[in-house]
Amino acid sequence: MEGWTLARPIARLIDEFSRLPGIGPKTASRLTFYLLRVSAEQAESLAAALVQLRRETRTCQVCFNISESSPCAICTSEARDAHLLCVVEEPLDVLALERTRRYHGRYHVLGGVISPVEGIGPEELRIEELVSRVGAERPSEVILATNPSMEGEATAMYLEKRLRPLGVRLTRLARGLPVGGDLEYADDVTLSRALEGRSEV
Amino acid sequence: MEGWTLARPIARLIDEFSRLPGIGPKTASRLTFYLLRVSAEQAESLAAALVQLRRETRTCQVCFNISESSPCAICTSEARDAHLLCVVEEPLDVLALERTRRYHGRYHVLGGVISPVEGIGPEELRIEELVSRVGAERPSEVILATNPSMEGEATAMYLEKRLRPLGVRLTRLARGLPVGGDLEYADDVTLSRALEGRSEV
Repeated sequence: MEGWTLARPIARLIDEFSRLPGIGPKTASRLTFYLLRVSAEQAESLAAALVQLRRETRTCQVCFNISESSPCAICTSEARDAHLLCVVEEPLDVLALERTRRYHGRYHVLGGVISPVEGIGPEELRIEELVSRVGAERPSEVILATNPSMEGEATAMYLEKRLRPLGVRLTRLARGLPVGGDLEYADDVTLSRALEGRSEV
Repeated sequence: MEGWTLARPIARLIDEFSRLPGIGPKTASRLTFYLLRVSAEQAESLAAALVQLRRETRTCQVCFNISESSPCAICTSEARDAHLLCVVEEPLDVLALERTRRYHGRYHVLGGVISPVEGIGPEELRIEELVSRVGAERPSEVILATNPSMEGEATAMYLEKRLRPLGVRLTRLARGLPVGGDLEYADDVTLSRALEGRSEV
């Protein structure tokens, strides 16, 4: 207004930040003006990390996780249990499972879930690769760790149909009340699953 | 664990995002894996905007706002009312006021507030510059638009002491109930100010 516009480099960064998920225009402005206040090094260091991100990572051609090398550190590690294979939707799920420090097997990253609404069929995912891999590696157990969502369940069912003929043991992560959660606030489906899956004390 | 670490470029970007205010490690991971999924262009475009931010902006030597030129577009605009000067803490406050489209004067950006706790005294701010500017430009009104916080109020009081001798009209933004706010949830001080500042209907 009155011939005033936000300086273009500022407007541009606000715009770029706003394109990220969960970052609205207010947060984008706050981040941008924060970076104007701190040292130029911090902004440039973030910029360098962004450039590095894609240039220095690749997709592991065994498990399809994102890694610095292919095959990745998990696929080549002698310390990981090769009899255990955990199938997840996304690389972020690998990170979540690794954080628990309770899983010592290998992974297979599907790259998403079957979602007819979004036009994602089995052929868009790393499912053929999974079937060949299970056939070749013969793990003793395959954990179908897709999300407990509608698409995740449907994908797990599809995987079950494809893997069952191979005679491998198939499991699914337990559904129940989240730890620290409140019974009172649990939805019906979760509570029903918690009841079904109840265990001896 | 088991010889596995997150790929360094991924860990580095999560770390860089986590240094931004209001972005925790979970959000930082989510943003990083989002950028791994989208086109490489989006990550590099954000990187370019970050580099541009500092390289293509400067501080206006008249009003100390961040701008592409010095003096900035507001300071040089014929359309802005030179008799009206609005003193704010940060460049983000200029953006907020411009968004209202109700202010047509000029600005003076202090670069912060007086805060003895953080060791920021009047000499760390653009206060001497403000005093000389008011003396030279002789605006008819100076709006002390520092935040309605303890430090903002203290800074406004200090500015009043410094500017009063110059015989200029000094004003402060109205305090009261935020529009769309609920009387029931207003704090005592805000409600007291809203009472004091009540207007005829």
